[in-house]
Amino acid sequence: MFFPAEIIKAKRNGHELTEQEISFFILSYTKNEIPDYQMSALLMAIYFQGLNQKETLALTQVMIKSGRVMSFPKTPEFKVDKHSTGGVGDKTSLILGPLVASLGIPVPMISGRGLGHTGGTLDKLESIPGFNTQLSLEQFEKMIFENKISFIGQTLDICPADKKIYALRDVTATIESLPLICASIMSKKLAEGANGLVLDVKWGTGAFMKSVDQAEKLALSLQRIAKDAGKKCTALITDMNQPLGRFAGNSLETFECVEIMRGESHPLYKSTRDLSLALSAHMVLLAGRAKNFHEAFIACEKQLESGAALAKFKEMVKIQGGKLDELPLSSNTEDIFAEFDGYIQSYQTEKIGIAGIALKAGRLVSTDQIEPTAGFEFYKKIGDPVQKGEKLFTIYGANRSLFMEAAELLRESVQISLQKPPVVDLIVKTLL
Amino acid sequence: MFFPAEIIKAKRNGHELTEQEISFFILSYTKNEIPDYQMSALLMAIYFQGLNQKETLALTQVMIKSGRVMSFPKTPEFKVDKHSTGGVGDKTSLILGPLVASLGIPVPMISGRGLGHTGGTLDKLESIPGFNTQLSLEQFEKMIFENKISFIGQTLDICPADKKIYALRDVTATIESLPLICASIMSKKLAEGANGLVLDVKWGTGAFMKSVDQAEKLALSLQRIAKDAGKKCTALITDMNQPLGRFAGNSLETFECVEIMRGESHPLYKSTRDLSLALSAHMVLLAGRAKNFHEAFIACEKQLESGAALAKFKEMVKIQGGKLDELPLSSNTEDIFAEFDGYIQSYQTEKIGIAGIALKAGRLVSTDQIEPTAGFEFYKKIGDPVQKGEKLFTIYGANRSLFMEAAELLRESVQISLQKPPVVDLIVKTLL
Repeated sequence: MFFPAEIIKAKRNGHELTEQEISFFILSYTKNEIPDYQMSALLMAIYFQGLNQKETLALTQVMIKSGRVMSFPKTPEFKVDKHSTGGVGDKTSLILGPLVASLGIPVPMISGRGLGHTGGTLDKLESIPGFNTQLSLEQFEKMIFENKISFIGQTLDICPADKKIYALRDVTATIESLPLICASIMSKKLAEGANGLVLDVKWGTGAFMKSVDQAEKLALSLQRIAKDAGKKCTALITDMNQPLGRFAGNSLETFECVEIMRGESHPLYKSTRDLSLALSAHMVLLAGRAKNFHEAFIACEKQLESGAALAKFKEMVKIQGGKLDELPLSSNTEDIFAEFDGYIQSYQTEKIGIAGIALKAGRLVSTDQIEPTAGFEFYKKIGDPVQKGEKLFTIYGANRSLFMEAAELLRESVQISLQKPPVVDLIVKTLL
Repeated sequence: MFFPAEIIKAKRNGHELTEQEISFFILSYTKNEIPDYQMSALLMAIYFQGLNQKETLALTQVMIKSGRVMSFPKTPEFKVDKHSTGGVGDKTSLILGPLVASLGIPVPMISGRGLGHTGGTLDKLESIPGFNTQLSLEQFEKMIFENKISFIGQTLDICPADKKIYALRDVTATIESLPLICASIMSKKLAEGANGLVLDVKWGTGAFMKSVDQAEKLALSLQRIAKDAGKKCTALITDMNQPLGRFAGNSLETFECVEIMRGESHPLYKSTRDLSLALSAHMVLLAGRAKNFHEAFIACEKQLESGAALAKFKEMVKIQGGKLDELPLSSNTEDIFAEFDGYIQSYQTEKIGIAGIALKAGRLVSTDQIEPTAGFEFYKKIGDPVQKGEKLFTIYGANRSLFMEAAELLRESVQISLQKPPVVDLIVKTLL
């Protein structure tokens, strides 16, 4: 017999909760047998007292148990997925998914939408006219079996406890808790039935984690949950001090990915291409399809250069109803120019994301509608020299009346200095 | 414009809340415009981050403002009340109320019921057949004007915010927060319209505060709120390491008070009589009716010895419908004897209170029914010598089948040692 108030009190007093207590509390809450007010008190107590690794794993596992767990009985091969903690212009899933699948490795991808300054894979795919992300789990299973890849949105069947708790955290100031963040991310990823997971944990001005140390702490905690749950997991700490690649915005990012898979060359494509290849190579390594990272990387580069990744992408888009040749790109543009000579010192990348919200390329709240062609083009990376009058940004979008606010935020988001700043590495650390 | 989640977050991050934020949150909650789950998150954040004196005062004042504030327009004299933090056998209100009123000082007493191991004044008075504590606030005002005293129960009109919040704290493990405790106590006391307040803050094994230091911290905090709200306030730190006086239990305690007011002498009456007189004297001092404590004490002792306090008590009981000569006392008794020679070393006083709950002299939850004649007689104070076979306790009550569990708890509650322990002072500190 468990008493909710006693469990809250135990956590409030800094005691470790047992697996049984966590399971009772979460499952009763999911069944509406524990009211919101007791859950929010527990969440705030967890905010202050934390959860240790054992408790975080127990929370993750009971959230998984609250719903359906994917199993893919017809696809017994090692399945692999990637999760990114989010940022601006972070579009690697659209490349690495088809790339890895084109090697015969199943990639079951259940993705989210953009919220706040970070984008979401679903929104990018839905910029392709007709692309349907609302497949049933049965259709999803069938595609993983037949095509090795499918991208779908989260469904109510998977981790309903996480959905209910996340909505409550959002209105009770209990989002910013490392163990709660870890359990929320990992429950969804572990429920989707992959055997291996590559984590792309961002750090910097456009990431939730502002320092490498914070990002590494998050990465280690996520990785430990995955490993304790019996999954293979590699985590990369990567740069989010500037937007990734050439574009941010939904159809623009899809366009960039297609261009890269088509073999188009552009200096601003480099970071997207390099990171997509590195993440793909780690996915291939986890799946046991290469002897070492170098071999995996070469294999991935070959899939990109041969057009195999693009062919797999086009196949998937077609099956999910998308018409890639109708991808909308806006011809409404406005350029923003440098006002000084110097070097790009830094970006306030989160502010670029907020400019995206102002432009309706992103959402402030989950019910906001997105304008798929809205977005930005970037021209300079940190450390690049820049002359007064050179282009720094181009704004794209259907609605010109939104450009002014976005332009103002973009202008504020870039710092130009006379001293050349040190180079920021794209991949800072790899945690195997 | 205030956002509840932002206010929760500010407190969570340890920031001071403004008076406006506190007022918005509490009044919106009282009007059901802020849901329970946001209030419980805020309460847990307050548990961890505390409230400073300014915030605690603001919280107290908005809880007062949530309901009706008594004003007694026909009784402009300085009115005085007492509040005790509760304990076992703590019955001084029944003596000091009429005593002080018999000096012409109005004493508006809004009292609570017993809960957990502590007793409540209302239950003691209701052990008198016919005594009605559910007067309207108009009847209460009339009695204060005409008789200088009335004892009533809390009504929904006074501090509805406190009632709603207290019920939520009870089920979300947020009771044990000093600022929340202070605001809850003081809002009710300040709303009842007294100009001066004497606080009896208990320390020891039967009190919420287990050390003198903790009790003093609580006393200072309560006193500061009262003074900041423009009230005169004296606080006493008093002993609750053993039951107060000779009896615990509702009709037994009423009997003890009548006996003391009648002038009956008994060694076990001493602590009840001494504390009642000291508290009365401080009330008289606050009301400006004496030059110093000594003079006030002499005046109070005179009211007790002359029978004036008893006469006022009888008058009040009669007006509120009570038949004092029908006060029920049980003839069912069971004695508990010492098993060793030695000295009374200590009591686990909370356990005596729990024995009272087992006997139905007290309540575990607020809906429990009380048996008015159930209770205990005590024979020894800490430091008293005791011989094997001497009586330590007598159990009284209508229902003999409950005696065994109570007896077991009573036996466990007393420690006898060979060394005479140091004497415990009845009044440890007086904070003027």
